[in-house]
Amino acid sequence: MNNFMRQSELFTKTRKESPAGEEAKNAKLLIRAGYLHKEMAGVYSYLPLGLLALNKIIGIIRREMNEIGGQEVFLSALQDPEVWKKTGRWSDEVFENWFKTKIKTGGEAGLSFTHEEPLSNLMKNQISSFRDLPRYVYQFQTKFRNEPRARSGIIRGREFLMKDLYSFSRNQKEHEMFYEKAKQAYQNIFADAGIGAQTYITYASGGSFSKYSHEFQTVTDAGEDTIYLCENCRVAVNKEIFAEQNTCPKCGAKVLAEKRAVEVGNIFSLGTRFSEAFDLNYLDEKGDKKLVVMGSYGIGPSRLLGAIVEVLADEKGIVWPKTVAPFQIHLIAVFDENGKVQPAAEKLYNKLLEKGIETLFDDRNIRAGEKFADADLIGIPLRVVISEKTLKENKIEIKERAGGEIKMVSESELIKTCA
Amino acid sequence: MNNFMRQSELFTKTRKESPAGEEAKNAKLLIRAGYLHKEMAGVYSYLPLGLLALNKIIGIIRREMNEIGGQEVFLSALQDPEVWKKTGRWSDEVFENWFKTKIKTGGEAGLSFTHEEPLSNLMKNQISSFRDLPRYVYQFQTKFRNEPRARSGIIRGREFLMKDLYSFSRNQKEHEMFYEKAKQAYQNIFADAGIGAQTYITYASGGSFSKYSHEFQTVTDAGEDTIYLCENCRVAVNKEIFAEQNTCPKCGAKVLAEKRAVEVGNIFSLGTRFSEAFDLNYLDEKGDKKLVVMGSYGIGPSRLLGAIVEVLADEKGIVWPKTVAPFQIHLIAVFDENGKVQPAAEKLYNKLLEKGIETLFDDRNIRAGEKFADADLIGIPLRVVISEKTLKENKIEIKERAGGEIKMVSESELIKTCA
Repeated sequence: MNNFMRQSELFTKTRKESPAGEEAKNAKLLIRAGYLHKEMAGVYSYLPLGLLALNKIIGIIRREMNEIGGQEVFLSALQDPEVWKKTGRWSDEVFENWFKTKIKTGGEAGLSFTHEEPLSNLMKNQISSFRDLPRYVYQFQTKFRNEPRARSGIIRGREFLMKDLYSFSRNQKEHEMFYEKAKQAYQNIFADAGIGAQTYITYASGGSFSKYSHEFQTVTDAGEDTIYLCENCRVAVNKEIFAEQNTCPKCGAKVLAEKRAVEVGNIFSLGTRFSEAFDLNYLDEKGDKKLVVMGSYGIGPSRLLGAIVEVLADEKGIVWPKTVAPFQIHLIAVFDENGKVQPAAEKLYNKLLEKGIETLFDDRNIRAGEKFADADLIGIPLRVVISEKTLKENKIEIKERAGGEIKMVSESELIKTCA
Repeated sequence: MNNFMRQSELFTKTRKESPAGEEAKNAKLLIRAGYLHKEMAGVYSYLPLGLLALNKIIGIIRREMNEIGGQEVFLSALQDPEVWKKTGRWSDEVFENWFKTKIKTGGEAGLSFTHEEPLSNLMKNQISSFRDLPRYVYQFQTKFRNEPRARSGIIRGREFLMKDLYSFSRNQKEHEMFYEKAKQAYQNIFADAGIGAQTYITYASGGSFSKYSHEFQTVTDAGEDTIYLCENCRVAVNKEIFAEQNTCPKCGAKVLAEKRAVEVGNIFSLGTRFSEAFDLNYLDEKGDKKLVVMGSYGIGPSRLLGAIVEVLADEKGIVWPKTVAPFQIHLIAVFDENGKVQPAAEKLYNKLLEKGIETLFDDRNIRAGEKFADADLIGIPLRVVISEKTLKENKIEIKERAGGEIKMVSESELIKTCA
């Protein structure tokens, strides 16, 4: 599907009701608007509008990952137990949310819940000298987690898309330089995706290899996490470390605001935990054998999509930022009895198509009120109306979904707005 | 990763040996050249070069699917047993290659081996009137099959990528019109992917709803199938129906050539088998309830990648068609003692980058012989060499990987060739 579509041909319909048992606002709205289909608890399929929006998010993330030197791969979903036994994480007691399955010819396989182990194992063939470092490897791949509770729609799925990047550095200093770059790239991503203002870099436990790791937490009542916020510094502390760190890590302020939030990303120094387990080392300039220093950097594009819906939607439906919307314009033809609107709307649709402005064209033969309600539910940034009234004035009616007045503009003004 | 890369930065290295136990030529070459990593029998990960090539194939297929009206979705991998019980295919006796897994909160889930059931189930919400038809829905999604034998590399994986399209039509006639369109789209795809000459439309058993289905079979010794070929008509008959149909279905010729082949695609009339099971019906113009007529249309992009390697590789390595190659140019700098080659090669690399010509730049500080051997193994269509000798002549040396002479050309001739 291209980013032009006649709504009369789009196979999804909007629905008045969301499926029974669905509690999460994000999933309810995305299902009602035709973005998602719920397969099972915590398992969703992406319909055309949903896949277009998801691909916009993937595009934003991919650009930033390439910018910081990431090389894209696509690792397998099925996991070899032998590889995971090296770190002990094959055990259901160590990681309790595995999905496991049996191989017909004998043995078991796991379904990937993360990829540190297989990637560290793979990199052993690729890294031997200091000349082979640093390296940054990322992917977009489905992850599977056998969540005991899957009640937050696409914010906590049993099957979900993940962008995971792993860094391989010569030493701690080189690692830290990249870690800071990745932090900045993550901030760019959340800003571009339209939730920069609601998203806070959040100090979290660093594990054995550094004092802190960092989460990116988006404030919303739908959040499953609790964070403590310093609005001045725009940083937060997560619940896990709040007992030890109950002041702002930047300015030392003592009064932090408690908020519900969704973790939309995290970055983590892994030190040599995985390189030790996989004997992932290199010869340095002097010929000495050294362990590779690693980091991991995750964003769930599907979770991010859900968080955007939670944060920006209003009582009428979804409100997309331009960067994530499946289309830029929702063109609505309000048909008249004289048959003048239809050819005018078709002409404008073709014009927008020719100009490369992504448009969903509501050419359906239904009541105008239904069209407007659907447009509010679907949430495309700019609603553009052609009706008998606008034709009389030789203008086009536009209205931003995010709010603001109805305006009458000329065709050339409209195209200038969108270019 | 963009389609420009310095080989000194590419994290994969070529290897002299393929993994022990790997029997298939496609996997051996793709692993040695750094396209793939083998995780387990029948399970492979895509490294940067492999993902670039895979994405080229996906791009070719997507364009053709959009062209015939396909709307792209992304359905879940985890499958609800209740949905599959409606056709009886949840049973391991009916489909014996399921991977199944347990859900922590109770019950089981399957891993998708195809998507007729979930999509038919989903379309019940979307189709009610003749106005909602026809519809064509496709996706690129990982499939899982618990193959007892996984010895053909990426030609028969336990986990592999599949493009599957499903058609929903009002009646048999409308179905057949689309079926013919899809057949043509498939022929375009295999031609664009560089194996049109080796790929034959092959008559296969049609099941209950039509006399024949059609496979697209690529002739290669690595094939697991046997087909019987009429070279005149460029059609074949598969083994399954050869007992009944031992003459050319087109010209009636009696002498058909027996060949080994790989099934790179198939198209299938499903009739009302699935719409009956899911009660997927619509009201026609007269208000009568009718069952939707379905078809399914599959291509495995990863299998296609493997078939291309099998068919086109030579004793030195992979030979990509331009349309599938990860890069168009493999630029090789043969460094000289006077240090003149390096800046000239850098300048050319920047020029190619600026012109948007996809280039892998071998800027590594290694022997020229190693660079040439790697270029042959990796298989990029045009090898471009800058050396002391070419600089003296103020020319650039080019050679096509698929064969042909070494030629000396000017920079502008090179750019014209690639544009």
